[in-house]
Amino acid sequence: MPTINRDLVRVPADVPAEFRDTYINNYLAATQNTGRLMLFACDQKIEHMNDDFFGEGISADDAEPEHLFKIGSQGVIGILAGQRGLVAQFAPDYPDINYLVKMNSKTHLVKTSQDDPYSPQLYGIETVLDLRDNGVNVVGVGYTIYLGSEHESMMMTEAGQLIADAHANGLIVVLWIYPRGEAVADEKDAHLIAGAAGTAACLGADFVKCNPPKGDDNASSAEKLVEASKASGRTGLVCAGGSTVDAATFLTQLHEQIHVGGAVGNATGRNIHQRSLDEAVRLTKAISAITLGDYEVDRALAVFNGTEDFSL
Amino acid sequence: MPTINRDLVRVPADVPAEFRDTYINNYLAATQNTGRLMLFACDQKIEHMNDDFFGEGISADDAEPEHLFKIGSQGVIGILAGQRGLVAQFAPDYPDINYLVKMNSKTHLVKTSQDDPYSPQLYGIETVLDLRDNGVNVVGVGYTIYLGSEHESMMMTEAGQLIADAHANGLIVVLWIYPRGEAVADEKDAHLIAGAAGTAACLGADFVKCNPPKGDDNASSAEKLVEASKASGRTGLVCAGGSTVDAATFLTQLHEQIHVGGAVGNATGRNIHQRSLDEAVRLTKAISAITLGDYEVDRALAVFNGTEDFSL
Amino acid sequence: MPTINRDLVRVPADVPAEFRDTYINNYLAATQNTGRLMLFACDQKIEHMNDDFFGEGISADDAEPEHLFKIGSQGVIGILAGQRGLVAQFAPDYPDINYLVKMNSKTHLVKTSQDDPYSPQLYGIETVLDLRDNGVNVVGVGYTIYLGSEHESMMMTEAGQLIADAHANGLIVVLWIYPRGEAVADEKDAHLIAGAAGTAACLGADFVKCNPPKGDDNASSAEKLVEASKASGRTGLVCAGGSTVDAATFLTQLHEQIHVGGAVGNATGRNIHQRSLDEAVRLTKAISAITLGDYEVDRALAVFNGTEDFSL
Amino acid sequence: MPTINRDLVRVPADVPAEFRDTYINNYLAATQNTGRLMLFACDQKIEHMNDDFFGEGISADDAEPEHLFKIGSQGVIGILAGQRGLVAQFAPDYPDINYLVKMNSKTHLVKTSQDDPYSPQLYGIETVLDLRDNGVNVVGVGYTIYLGSEHESMMMTEAGQLIADAHANGLIVVLWIYPRGEAVADEKDAHLIAGAAGTAACLGADFVKCNPPKGDDNASSAEKLVEASKASGRTGLVCAGGSTVDAATFLTQLHEQIHVGGAVGNATGRNIHQRSLDEAVRLTKAISAITLGDYEVDRALAVFNGTEDFSL
Amino acid sequence: MPTINRDLVRVPADVPAEFRDTYINNYLAATQNTGRLMLFACDQKIEHMNDDFFGEGISADDAEPEHLFKIGSQGVIGILAGQRGLVAQFAPDYPDINYLVKMNSKTHLVKTSQDDPYSPQLYGIETVLDLRDNGVNVVGVGYTIYLGSEHESMMMTEAGQLIADAHANGLIVVLWIYPRGEAVADEKDAHLIAGAAGTAACLGADFVKCNPPKGDDNASSAEKLVEASKASGRTGLVCAGGSTVDAATFLTQLHEQIHVGGAVGNATGRNIHQRSLDEAVRLTKAISAITLGDYEVDRALAVFNGTEDFSL
Repeated sequence: MPTINRDLVRVPADVPAEFRDTYINNYLAATQNTGRLMLFACDQKIEHMNDDFFGEGISADDAEPEHLFKIGSQGVIGILAGQRGLVAQFAPDYPDINYLVKMNSKTHLVKTSQDDPYSPQLYGIETVLDLRDNGVNVVGVGYTIYLGSEHESMMMTEAGQLIADAHANGLIVVLWIYPRGEAVADEKDAHLIAGAAGTAACLGADFVKCNPPKGDDNASSAEKLVEASKASGRTGLVCAGGSTVDAATFLTQLHEQIHVGGAVGNATGRNIHQRSLDEAVRLTKAISAITLGDYEVDRALAVFNGTEDFSL
Repeated sequence: MPTINRDLVRVPADVPAEFRDTYINNYLAATQNTGRLMLFACDQKIEHMNDDFFGEGISADDAEPEHLFKIGSQGVIGILAGQRGLVAQFAPDYPDINYLVKMNSKTHLVKTSQDDPYSPQLYGIETVLDLRDNGVNVVGVGYTIYLGSEHESMMMTEAGQLIADAHANGLIVVLWIYPRGEAVADEKDAHLIAGAAGTAACLGADFVKCNPPKGDDNASSAEKLVEASKASGRTGLVCAGGSTVDAATFLTQLHEQIHVGGAVGNATGRNIHQRSLDEAVRLTKAISAITLGDYEVDRALAVFNGTEDFSL
Repeated sequence: MPTINRDLVRVPADVPAEFRDTYINNYLAATQNTGRLMLFACDQKIEHMNDDFFGEGISADDAEPEHLFKIGSQGVIGILAGQRGLVAQFAPDYPDINYLVKMNSKTHLVKTSQDDPYSPQLYGIETVLDLRDNGVNVVGVGYTIYLGSEHESMMMTEAGQLIADAHANGLIVVLWIYPRGEAVADEKDAHLIAGAAGTAACLGADFVKCNPPKGDDNASSAEKLVEASKASGRTGLVCAGGSTVDAATFLTQLHEQIHVGGAVGNATGRNIHQRSLDEAVRLTKAISAITLGDYEVDRALAVFNGTEDFSL
Repeated sequence: MPTINRDLVRVPADVPAEFRDTYINNYLAATQNTGRLMLFACDQKIEHMNDDFFGEGISADDAEPEHLFKIGSQGVIGILAGQRGLVAQFAPDYPDINYLVKMNSKTHLVKTSQDDPYSPQLYGIETVLDLRDNGVNVVGVGYTIYLGSEHESMMMTEAGQLIADAHANGLIVVLWIYPRGEAVADEKDAHLIAGAAGTAACLGADFVKCNPPKGDDNASSAEKLVEASKASGRTGLVCAGGSTVDAATFLTQLHEQIHVGGAVGNATGRNIHQRSLDEAVRLTKAISAITLGDYEVDRALAVFNGTEDFSL
Repeated sequence: MPTINRDLVRVPADVPAEFRDTYINNYLAATQNTGRLMLFACDQKIEHMNDDFFGEGISADDAEPEHLFKIGSQGVIGILAGQRGLVAQFAPDYPDINYLVKMNSKTHLVKTSQDDPYSPQLYGIETVLDLRDNGVNVVGVGYTIYLGSEHESMMMTEAGQLIADAHANGLIVVLWIYPRGEAVADEKDAHLIAGAAGTAACLGADFVKCNPPKGDDNASSAEKLVEASKASGRTGLVCAGGSTVDAATFLTQLHEQIHVGGAVGNATGRNIHQRSLDEAVRLTKAISAITLGDYEVDRALAVFNGTEDFSL
């Protein structure tokens, strides 16, 4: 199991001395002292509205938002990422989870064919600091940028300032960066994704969540990911989980992203919460076994199947 | 009659310690100690201009705005929702009403076929706090979001910040969320309405006002509402009253929304104020009998017909 | 002559205790202790550029802006409404006039056929308070909203905040509300004007200036105005004077607007200032005789013709 | 030579008591104690890029921006108007010039046929006050409004607030107002220019720079200017110099603008700086001889030709 | 080797007394006490995404962003220009480099044919001051303006304010100015570039980075550059390096830009970092030999080839 200690946390220079310890604590908490990130993405109730939470193939448990917090509480995760209001409502009953407040979101109603995507920042950083002051275990903030959108500039400037403000207060930052819009021919192009990863580095994010590139006959997705994980420099790269696939496939991909592609973890949502509570909890443990525990895929599958346990 | 006490009010984590009691007081006042919400919607003078207040089938009493405050004062309601200026003019003479300041509004002159809807925030939260400081009994604020509008982002960001600011000052928040715009094919689709309800939860609203979904051969409107009332989690869902129908139909629908659909109350405007003062007062009592008093429809109709009274 | 005293002034709840006396003083000054409003509109130098001040049928006196202040000083008016800069330049020489600072204005160069109207707020409320602190007799502020314009939202939000800020500082507010834009088929429709009047009430204006509705075979303009004057509630309604007509016609219309239509005064510009100083002064007295003195039309005409005087 | 003293300076009411002396000092300095304005316009390096400074018929002296400051220092002018950065770079070496900071500018690359003009404010008023605090002899600020542009509202609101802020700090303000855009058929129409002049008065500018109107068979340009100089009221009107013409023609026009048209000075750029230093210096003296010294044209030409000198 | 001392640094008047020494220190540090600027441009990871860092003809060393800092640290440069976040992540390990924080950036995904370019400011100046307070050796800030873009106004106003704020805090400013957009027919036109240089002077930049103009049969690129270097006045002009060419060609061009064209240095990115670390380090020394050491081309080539060394 990878382990880091306080001295190994690289504190960026925009964290002031008075919040240096806070930043280190948050970084260690988010990565569970491993330097790896297991992010449980719970922001889709706006992004995909109820499509991800109700319908064929989705557990009835997922119909109510508390499901997400039960999973986060009973499973093994690094951070639970959700919008401010959702966190504010449930955190009092689930105080031990590490929360990352997702700062922007949009619905999927207006398609890219109608208008290029813009996901607005929904509240100021001070509202997040207020949550922390009120006792919520907030370790960081997240923001999505759609590069190549005609509205790219608005998201770039919101993210650019947000990262500075977050670090100035000791919070870590995860950027979701997806190339999307009329100008983007292939969102899954490895070279383009590497550009997105480099953009996150320039903005100073601690982690960047990208889509895994599309593999081809010459190189697998994980092999192609190497360009991006290098381009992101000291910004740790994690891949989005995407739509639900079977656990074996999912865990295999994750293992390759880390051990071949240079990713430092995962960011998974639907794949987890669309399952029943019990199964979802086991999947978080299996994922964490790989991300945080450096397990091989087989052993992680055993965790998922409940024949082995994984805890920190 | 459903009853809650101070300990049963779930205070979200964005309410700071110093305003915790205020929030609880406001929540109990708004719900009349029941946890259920009877919202008297009085914001249509901008939204529908004079169409809702003057014309065939509308009582002459409704021509003057003071009618709304007479109803709110003599009837039985939880909160009266109106724009800041209207409240400021009449509240000194009707000090006992619980007021919810509607923060945004637009006229209906520009139709969706000309431009997607945007309803701008009309004044800052500090103007509401000033009203409260001046002695007005303001318990919360309201805001309308048109999801799927090309201007969705502006409303999302205004609402997102508003909720944080309101809670930070102990006020409760009701969101009106309606999918509307070129991108929205069917505003009354149950799945879409559930997505709207979930959005309100993510933003941290205390209550969300949605349109009731369209029923079909397989499921009634109230049955279809269940998806939304689950998706909204700890955000209480209430349905808009819509245009005026006869009292029996209206009260039956309301009863089903609560007891079948999982709604926690009602948000009713035209159905009430387009009647004469006396009739309108009796209708508020009938509605409250169902929402706050858990009456059956027949008994609520007796209240409406004046053969029985309802008070808190 | 209608008379009110301090106790009869309805102070809205957004006026704080410390500015309650100021508000009452301003209200009484603006209405000359009558509760009625005689507004001398002097904002057309931007709105209509020099069209209203130079050309055939316009007195040469009107070529220079000081004409407006001479009229305001020598005539009988309630308030003189003009842009901040104009007031700042002339008020030192005309200190006794009650000034209302018009906060927004636009030229008429871009026609509605090219773009829907937007009239921007030209300066912050604090610049008006500064004028007052410097000794200028400012009693209130004014703002124009074009309802139904595609830019309605910008004017609604500027006006909404302005009213709160003005009241918070004891100033009265007059809204000019005109439905206008691609979406507006008939600007003079009585029902639409009533909607505009109701909007002013919701925003909390003290007075609203509307165009008089178009009369037809069934009802005169003044009769149709009743819908609007009821819809405006406690916001006093006054009608715009429009382009210059002969004095007898003008005064007759005004009398009917008040005594049939429920208006509480007048808002007149061109009809006054396009005349020579002497004639303009006499017209202000004739108008005030009706608005503030409850004179009949004949006697007001005698004032205009100089055979009788009117003073407060 | 026209002369004014402190008591004759009309201080607008938006200048607070503490900055009254500063305003009077600035007004007297700018007008060289005459009440007339000789403005040396040096803002074209952005407005016209290098077209005004390099090419056929332009002195090689004009290739370097220091040329402007040499002229301002060795010649006789009232104020030198230039962008903040240019002033900041050269003022330390030319401390005796009266500076007017031009607050907005745009290049001429995007033509009106592509988009209506918008010239954005480039820096806040506080940056000008900082320059003054640092010892630069700043007496005022300038701003250009393109009336009739689809972006008119943005410039009106920036100018409206700027004038209030400048006066609040004792600075004088010169507005450049040019009707321009798709909606403007004839930029040189006398009636339209008068409307522009009146707009400047309503905004409260101390001086307004307009284009001279186009003369016709019935009235010369200077005769037609009278409408504008009356419309501008207490805002002094000066005419733009336009492109370079021979000195005799230029000085004759200027004399007529003042003595026939009612202008109170000149605003000249290219006509001065496109000449060699020596010639440019002599032209400033000739212009000032007319504007500030009330010379006849012949004697001013003698100053230009170096056979007579003019100093203050 | 050109040398300046503290007394020869021209401090613009917008630097207040308290930051005068800081400005001089920063100016001397950036120019290595020569008055000449060797700028190592490291902002392309956003501007060109990964195209400049990975692919045929690019050293594998360039795949990771730390490469840039290794070059900056081991080579000889004046300042390293990069986005705030990148600097924050690596500066703690490379504390001796002089950093210039690039304040705005955009990706190249949306082409000019789709929309005119706008590169938004990504963070406020206070975040740069915070970096400096945290011990990072920040000497200045940079900003790109696309003149002639339909979004020119937004960049002009951001840059205009930025320069004032930077100088107010003792930081130097480099503007990148490129004419670009539908309105720009020829980005490399010498006269247009001179206009861009003059714009930088009016905004008050310390240095301006332009593209070298296109030469023709009558005049070389360097000869044509003279117009721009004169137009920029006291704002030092440096030329962008452009895409990678062989070292001899590159160094010859640079020498001519300085000694023929009047440039005061260079701004070079891809030409340096697309090489292996060793080669890149030698190239920075060869460039600095010309820019800072006034070497002839042959001797600078010897430095590049490693047969001679260059240090400060």
